[in-house]
Amino acid sequence: MADRDPQGTFQAVEAATGEAIDPSFSQSTAQDVDAACAKAAGAFDSYRAIEPDKRAAFLEAIGDEIMALGDELLERAGRETGLPAARLTGERGRTVGQLKLFAKTVRDGHWQSVRIDPAMPEREPMPRSDLRMRMVPLGPVAVFGASNFPLAFSTAGGDTASALAAGCPVVVKGHPAHPGTDEMVAGAIAEAARKTGMPDGVFGHVRGTGNELGAALVKDPRIAAVGFTGSRAGGLALVAVAQQREVPIPVYAEMSSINPVVLMPHALKQRGAELGAAFVQSLTMGAGQFCTNPGLVLAIEGEGLDAFESAASEALAGHDPQPMLTGGIRKAFSQGTAKLAGHDGVTELAAGVAGDGIAREAARLFSASAEAFLGDPALGAEVFGASSLVVHCKDAGELRKVLESLEGQLTATLQMDDADTDAVRPLIPVLERKAGRILANGWPTGVEVATAMVHGGPYPATSDSRTTSVGTLAIDRFLRPVCYQNLPLTLLPETLRDGTKLPKMVDGEPA
Amino acid sequence: MADRDPQGTFQAVEAATGEAIDPSFSQSTAQDVDAACAKAAGAFDSYRAIEPDKRAAFLEAIGDEIMALGDELLERAGRETGLPAARLTGERGRTVGQLKLFAKTVRDGHWQSVRIDPAMPEREPMPRSDLRMRMVPLGPVAVFGASNFPLAFSTAGGDTASALAAGCPVVVKGHPAHPGTDEMVAGAIAEAARKTGMPDGVFGHVRGTGNELGAALVKDPRIAAVGFTGSRAGGLALVAVAQQREVPIPVYAEMSSINPVVLMPHALKQRGAELGAAFVQSLTMGAGQFCTNPGLVLAIEGEGLDAFESAASEALAGHDPQPMLTGGIRKAFSQGTAKLAGHDGVTELAAGVAGDGIAREAARLFSASAEAFLGDPALGAEVFGASSLVVHCKDAGELRKVLESLEGQLTATLQMDDADTDAVRPLIPVLERKAGRILANGWPTGVEVATAMVHGGPYPATSDSRTTSVGTLAIDRFLRPVCYQNLPLTLLPETLRDGTKLPKMVDGEPA
Repeated sequence: MADRDPQGTFQAVEAATGEAIDPSFSQSTAQDVDAACAKAAGAFDSYRAIEPDKRAAFLEAIGDEIMALGDELLERAGRETGLPAARLTGERGRTVGQLKLFAKTVRDGHWQSVRIDPAMPEREPMPRSDLRMRMVPLGPVAVFGASNFPLAFSTAGGDTASALAAGCPVVVKGHPAHPGTDEMVAGAIAEAARKTGMPDGVFGHVRGTGNELGAALVKDPRIAAVGFTGSRAGGLALVAVAQQREVPIPVYAEMSSINPVVLMPHALKQRGAELGAAFVQSLTMGAGQFCTNPGLVLAIEGEGLDAFESAASEALAGHDPQPMLTGGIRKAFSQGTAKLAGHDGVTELAAGVAGDGIAREAARLFSASAEAFLGDPALGAEVFGASSLVVHCKDAGELRKVLESLEGQLTATLQMDDADTDAVRPLIPVLERKAGRILANGWPTGVEVATAMVHGGPYPATSDSRTTSVGTLAIDRFLRPVCYQNLPLTLLPETLRDGTKLPKMVDGEPA
Repeated sequence: MADRDPQGTFQAVEAATGEAIDPSFSQSTAQDVDAACAKAAGAFDSYRAIEPDKRAAFLEAIGDEIMALGDELLERAGRETGLPAARLTGERGRTVGQLKLFAKTVRDGHWQSVRIDPAMPEREPMPRSDLRMRMVPLGPVAVFGASNFPLAFSTAGGDTASALAAGCPVVVKGHPAHPGTDEMVAGAIAEAARKTGMPDGVFGHVRGTGNELGAALVKDPRIAAVGFTGSRAGGLALVAVAQQREVPIPVYAEMSSINPVVLMPHALKQRGAELGAAFVQSLTMGAGQFCTNPGLVLAIEGEGLDAFESAASEALAGHDPQPMLTGGIRKAFSQGTAKLAGHDGVTELAAGVAGDGIAREAARLFSASAEAFLGDPALGAEVFGASSLVVHCKDAGELRKVLESLEGQLTATLQMDDADTDAVRPLIPVLERKAGRILANGWPTGVEVATAMVHGGPYPATSDSRTTSVGTLAIDRFLRPVCYQNLPLTLLPETLRDGTKLPKMVDGEPA
């Protein structure tokens, strides 16, 4: 995390060493928030009126400008986050791909949800007026950068891309753990806006280390919605601020999830050891700093589970950790794992290599009985980082009971063989109620940016289960419907006029 | 409103006379709420698994059972609400039509939003898994009956129809102002559920006169969403309860709106008097007890506006009112209009016939300058009933300023001629930001139940601007997306299997 000085500036910290990195960045003030929101509100009507093709070109240009930053961006992000170069290269590709996918989404127009119910002047007993509906953007959106995805979920990440795609100006609060990365990307967005002729104010940017800044942004009456990825405490604080406004606004906070992995008996029996090794790969990827990190494993006890645990313990014992993102995250991980290790009902199965340097934390694996897990909700709390708990169930009934006891999750994973199918079937409705994404024979980490992706889920995985923050459906978060009744054709938005080429429903049928 | 006695029973009151009507109804208790929610939760997984065609048949059967109640239902509703027979006959038709439209919606399957991104095993650098997405229902929904639509927005009204269509069991809290109507309709739903083989608990029903009952229902952890139509105070109270739950849930409260009508200069000049008379028809319909009642008129002063006001005053002076729905509504109307009449900046233009009987209130029409209106937010408060305020603007700039000052609205109406087009054009973006429905040359009362309808709008018109409570889009309120990644075909819901006939997107394209 960043160092703050009394002069209102702060510096990034090298994740691996804890050393401050030049230069210093100025802290944004309440006046900066006010100015950014005023400009965003001023840009709203003109930005949303811009034709889809130009809006799409803006999104693509952001991607181009990010690529034009070259290796310097990746180097800076690497120093600030401790994430390895290969990961950051991949994340950059994902970020640019995401912008392109939203550009395509803007152009194809499904997001406008055009519906037309033609007039029925002869209808008895009452004629029907001409009714036409489309989606319009909510207004300026506040986006909070995430520490664990300095590119794909920060300044030009999924929230920014989907809000801009929807026609909403965006004001980003950059994450203070990677201010240099944030600064470079914010510059790329501003440059793209300039080159593609977007209205001044379409993108605003503030930064700072305190919580007051984010609260001021969410409180601003010109902000119409909020996108956030981070901790449960952080997300709930923003939700509370948003609800207490004179005009409450939606907050899309992606907060916490322990992503249960269910190991079914036949799969365990056939490939328990193989699963154990693969599991550790998913658990330790990126120092476990993923929202979808598998923090909970459920299985029925027996030889298969023993083999899984042995293989996982062995793989873990040899794991050499990478630095964690920030001192705060490291401290929370250290406290969370200490709590598990000291818990009466918990056994420590294995720990990874402790690692050199102040920033590294050994990966940890624990186990507990289902009875212990059901008896203490604290065992279901997220420990952000490479820590997981294997819960031993006596039988299928107890396994189901544990699943039913869980809070809302981003994902639920099944490791299963064909012979497990009948046993899995009754679990599907439970998983559907608990999670936004159900996977079989894969691992929850690695979220595809696609049309059918759901990176969301029931509370407290997110603050709003009706949405996703990854994939094209994310655009819907920033839209609302408006109906135009009997409006003269020349006053209708072009997308609703007769002969519009957009995908549409006419009298409820695709046309 | 209902009379309550210490024995835990209450009676309906004849709207026109204030006399109690037999029989007495028992007040539901906290235990009744608990039991209804337990049954609803128990029915959820089986109800949502029922194939769409059967679910649709259930909705149609509810309509049939309501029709089978015959005139007795209309008579009871008439006594309890004071609404005339023709209106109630129409409302019954709308209610049954609404159920049929949602049955059709369930069958056509667009609501499932099927999206399929096929696996790309050869993709570099990483293969893509098979991803399939659909909407699933949120869970049991609490529905609050509305006093002003004893059929179309009460026990089997729009909220119930759309929640059942989505696959959510429903627990209705019947409105205490029409308990007899509520009882009959609840019986019809129960009978339809029985005849079509729906699971026990798909529909639950509680009733009572206090606020505690509704709060207990919203607090129940098994309730997943709330539908409400009523006052701002009532809606906001439920929103607060829902937000304070351990697991907060969405509340769709349709609360208050003054539905601005903008009279454009050329229209006023051409047909000021005609508009005045037509306006009074909309204003006084159903004693003005509509969410979409035109409570605010905006125009630039001049001869046309004078003609409008003269004609409106004349029409109003001859208007003989019908009884209001409840004593509480009558009292609030009386207080609200007295406040306007006593306001320094307000002139009373006209009042209707006072009417016989305790339940009738004269319709009222006031005027004020834009300056006065802008100077006192109280002049923009909803007065539920036949009361409206004409705001005189000096010029187009002042008119726009008044529009910009308004809170969120369900509707905004333009009375305009072709020659007004250029003056209207710059107002459209303002109206889009303020309202859920924009009408030209009609009146806001009379909400079509259709595919393209939006009966919603920015706060405080509703608690959630992203939705509508009328029309087929209302089903979306009770759904959330789930993604299935790499799930064996036999475990996928039928709607997501290869060859599904449902409307779908494959790799982002309709297929």
